[in-house]
Amino acid sequence: MSGAPRGAAVSGAPLDAALRLALDAGESVRGSTTPNPPVGAVILDAAGQVAGVGATRPPGGPHAEVVALAAAGERARGGTAVVTLEPCNHIGRTGPCAQALLRAGVAAVYYAVTDPNPPAAGGAQTLRAAGVSVHGGFGADLAEAGALRAWLHRQRTGRPHVTWKFAASLDGRSAAADGTSRWISGPQSRARVHAERARLDAIVVGTGTVLADDPWLTARQPDGSLAPHQPLRVVVGRSEIPRTARVLDDAAPTLVLRTHDPDEVLGALADRADVLLEGGPRLAGAFLAAGRVDRIQAYLAPVLLGAGPSAVRDAGVGTIAEALRFRRERVETVGADVLLTLVPDRE
Amino acid sequence: MSGAPRGAAVSGAPLDAALRLALDAGESVRGSTTPNPPVGAVILDAAGQVAGVGATRPPGGPHAEVVALAAAGERARGGTAVVTLEPCNHIGRTGPCAQALLRAGVAAVYYAVTDPNPPAAGGAQTLRAAGVSVHGGFGADLAEAGALRAWLHRQRTGRPHVTWKFAASLDGRSAAADGTSRWISGPQSRARVHAERARLDAIVVGTGTVLADDPWLTARQPDGSLAPHQPLRVVVGRSEIPRTARVLDDAAPTLVLRTHDPDEVLGALADRADVLLEGGPRLAGAFLAAGRVDRIQAYLAPVLLGAGPSAVRDAGVGTIAEALRFRRERVETVGADVLLTLVPDRE
Repeated sequence: MSGAPRGAAVSGAPLDAALRLALDAGESVRGSTTPNPPVGAVILDAAGQVAGVGATRPPGGPHAEVVALAAAGERARGGTAVVTLEPCNHIGRTGPCAQALLRAGVAAVYYAVTDPNPPAAGGAQTLRAAGVSVHGGFGADLAEAGALRAWLHRQRTGRPHVTWKFAASLDGRSAAADGTSRWISGPQSRARVHAERARLDAIVVGTGTVLADDPWLTARQPDGSLAPHQPLRVVVGRSEIPRTARVLDDAAPTLVLRTHDPDEVLGALADRADVLLEGGPRLAGAFLAAGRVDRIQAYLAPVLLGAGPSAVRDAGVGTIAEALRFRRERVETVGADVLLTLVPDRE
Repeated sequence: MSGAPRGAAVSGAPLDAALRLALDAGESVRGSTTPNPPVGAVILDAAGQVAGVGATRPPGGPHAEVVALAAAGERARGGTAVVTLEPCNHIGRTGPCAQALLRAGVAAVYYAVTDPNPPAAGGAQTLRAAGVSVHGGFGADLAEAGALRAWLHRQRTGRPHVTWKFAASLDGRSAAADGTSRWISGPQSRARVHAERARLDAIVVGTGTVLADDPWLTARQPDGSLAPHQPLRVVVGRSEIPRTARVLDDAAPTLVLRTHDPDEVLGALADRADVLLEGGPRLAGAFLAAGRVDRIQAYLAPVLLGAGPSAVRDAGVGTIAEALRFRRERVETVGADVLLTLVPDRE
């Protein structure tokens, strides 16, 4: 991961460790920064010791570099900044990070991902012009697959990033023949889904799911209490849902959209970056058929049902040559279940 | 894995290494020894060096210990035998292995699994009575899960061991809406299935699979040629299959059974130990509902279909509380696919 620094005080292992710290810091604020990116920053002093760690504060608060610099104080002088995203150059609500790094006297800057956002980009050039040793692309793969993923997707495509999550039996069913489904996946998987919800911008389900399961769609902590951050709950489809539906309670905001069309749904969520699609099967099929699923998280339980509704229907595939193909990004075990993470195989 | 040997020349790492060699030797002859078990044996000389490795020869040939002793020659004297199964005590076609070990002057015997077969059991006692240091249960877990698995199952239950293998999309479908299914799983998975077939006693499919796919059900080598050992091909069900079906060619023997009942099918295969059930969905459902699936190998491809037949139907599950639950034994990636190996969760 490390490149050879020119004129910088540190290199090698301290830089790699700082990158991991910065990635973790960014991950820790995922879900709380939209529309800003969840960035992590670490300041090493001239001797290569960690002097400050920071992450993007909620909108209106300071960016990651500013937080890390405040923690480092005078130790930043002659030191090195490691940031998951190119320091911004624009005068936003908090002033440009590039200027803050210069004022603090940082000698070298390593950043992972180049800012694709035109008004903010150019921070690297500003720093370089002022004599700072600047290195882009440091840990770019890790940062792109990490906390910045959804934000980058939105910057590049203009659409929110959609993760379709489903839990199914080994034979791909999301409920038994009589419609019962509690529980197919295990407690560890369900706890993980709740932890993940707390870091999202929105959760989308169809009216059919609301009518069948009456879910809350809230993010709950292990003790059952509501997590501090709740995603927007989005119910889509043409069926009426009862006023007493749990998803309409006041635990979190809810948006009801009278459409099934993926692009209309995503258009209504254009100011969100990280969207989770939880089903049901027809809604998932519509998003898949439209090419609007950017990642799949499949929780597969060691269970067979042999009957009951499938996790996905009507995905626009009539014959094997039209099969929707994905690339495996990760395989994990979660309790008794297996979690497969896949992304579209765009070859 | 190692126990403290009493009066034996070797212990620790050489014993563990010998156990791994013996397990590998047993695995190398799996499929070629029925009705005898595929056993592996290693002889270490008095200094702990490997003097001979052997595995069970085809029926009528010598047992593993005799093969390993022949390779070791005089170096067996004062040495140690490591065997995956308790040395046999009976006078079969090849004479008892316990006597052969005594004649060779072996000082210590480590074996993994106690022989459950009454006429053959008692070898450990014979050896112990003659002054040999005997240690049972050495690596028993590995040996039971390895090459001896099917043979042990048959000894203990009187039935062949049944592995149900299926390949499916992530949404549990074994074909697209129009019935096409070539290919859902990738080339590495298909090669692995062929390699596995060459080590089986029988492959079972339903008449529906023969009518729909006209498979050969032979084990082929990577170059397309037939593997030296072919399993018995078994077609079950009440539909007529055409005389021109590929499964009736002369590449391997074929048994046609006019029943769908799992116990009738297994009764007809009572002299086999290792049986692979390849489908279709209803036949798999019948075996699952009857509790006659001892292991599942699920090749899950990173593919979605959204329509088409499920890998299993009618498994006797009406509601979630009746779900058939399994325990994950292994998760592997095979090319782009994920292979889950599961066993029934008998709690």
